[in-house]
Amino acid sequence: MDVFIEPIGRLINEFSKLPGVGKKTAQRYAYKIIGMSESEAKDFAESIIYCKQRVKYCRVCGNFTENEICDICRTRDKSVICVVKEPKDVIAMEKLHEYKGVYHVLHGVLSPMDGIGPNDIRIKELLSRIDDGVKEVIMATNPDVEGEATAMYIARLIKPLGVNVTRLAHGIPVGGELEYTDEVTLARALIERKQI
Amino acid sequence: MDVFIEPIGRLINEFSKLPGVGKKTAQRYAYKIIGMSESEAKDFAESIIYCKQRVKYCRVCGNFTENEICDICRTRDKSVICVVKEPKDVIAMEKLHEYKGVYHVLHGVLSPMDGIGPNDIRIKELLSRIDDGVKEVIMATNPDVEGEATAMYIARLIKPLGVNVTRLAHGIPVGGELEYTDEVTLARALIERKQI
Repeated sequence: MDVFIEPIGRLINEFSKLPGVGKKTAQRYAYKIIGMSESEAKDFAESIIYCKQRVKYCRVCGNFTENEICDICRTRDKSVICVVKEPKDVIAMEKLHEYKGVYHVLHGVLSPMDGIGPNDIRIKELLSRIDDGVKEVIMATNPDVEGEATAMYIARLIKPLGVNVTRLAHGIPVGGELEYTDEVTLARALIERKQI
Repeated sequence: MDVFIEPIGRLINEFSKLPGVGKKTAQRYAYKIIGMSESEAKDFAESIIYCKQRVKYCRVCGNFTENEICDICRTRDKSVICVVKEPKDVIAMEKLHEYKGVYHVLHGVLSPMDGIGPNDIRIKELLSRIDDGVKEVIMATNPDVEGEATAMYIARLIKPLGVNVTRLAHGIPVGGELEYTDEVTLARALIERKQI
């Protein structure tokens, strides 16, 4: 795009690397940066470098942390481990303010189609965490094909160690309507119905 | 949001300053940055600083430039000046590869409601550019209330100087359908009908 001068073109190109950002949106972002004060733009750029430099993965659970071991691993109940696919799933769970245990981030799920096998995600690290103190492992991978397969695979490895392995419940979303619930979910809700 | 560690929270906060970006999108962008290599993140941050430092406004037309005077002002036909609201409107015009004249960026339009008067936009600078060499001024402000008013205001100042002042044509968009054209536009298309 030779209609843009080089510094703007370069910035647009960088913004285009963000997920879901096309040329037009990147252009709007670039104009916003140009319209900022010198110090605002500097703060923006520095927050990128700062974030990239400070954020590491917890040596134990694989979640984002600024230290060797994350706050959750250091302070919470280690008898329950919630296994998730990505760090953002930890955020989703933490927002509930319900869960008191620790996490294990797999950084992916099994996906033979994409060539991702058991050694490509943090399964070995999970197994090494299973000791006498662990009472339950909650498999909280996504309820899609890869997520289910990963949950089943890991459950089969952990169960023989005498640990209770559970899976998040399926069913109708709270506030949802039967009419608009997909058939597979509704069928699961029926099968897993509970006494009231 | 205390579910995020500080460097991530800070980056999310910065991304939220971009137009149309909410917390959720900012979060996605932040994760993307964390997933980048050290050098990719550095390039990203540097392109912000670089753009902010290098991009200035052309002393003549007010468009973005890396120099004192922009390439367009230095190389193109100065007898026609196209007046636009913002630098991004120059990009829109340049993409046509049709226009061979120069530009004048007002950096705003008259808007009494927002307290923006003739002295708050670059009208004085435009008048100082009108000399014997200028044959036509094309008012290409947006076809909204403020844009129209600004075009009329400026036209009234320039016409007495013996310069031809024109306005972009209104009408049905090319490829559009009568049925879906709004009434005001259709009325203008009828009034300004042309012999074929």
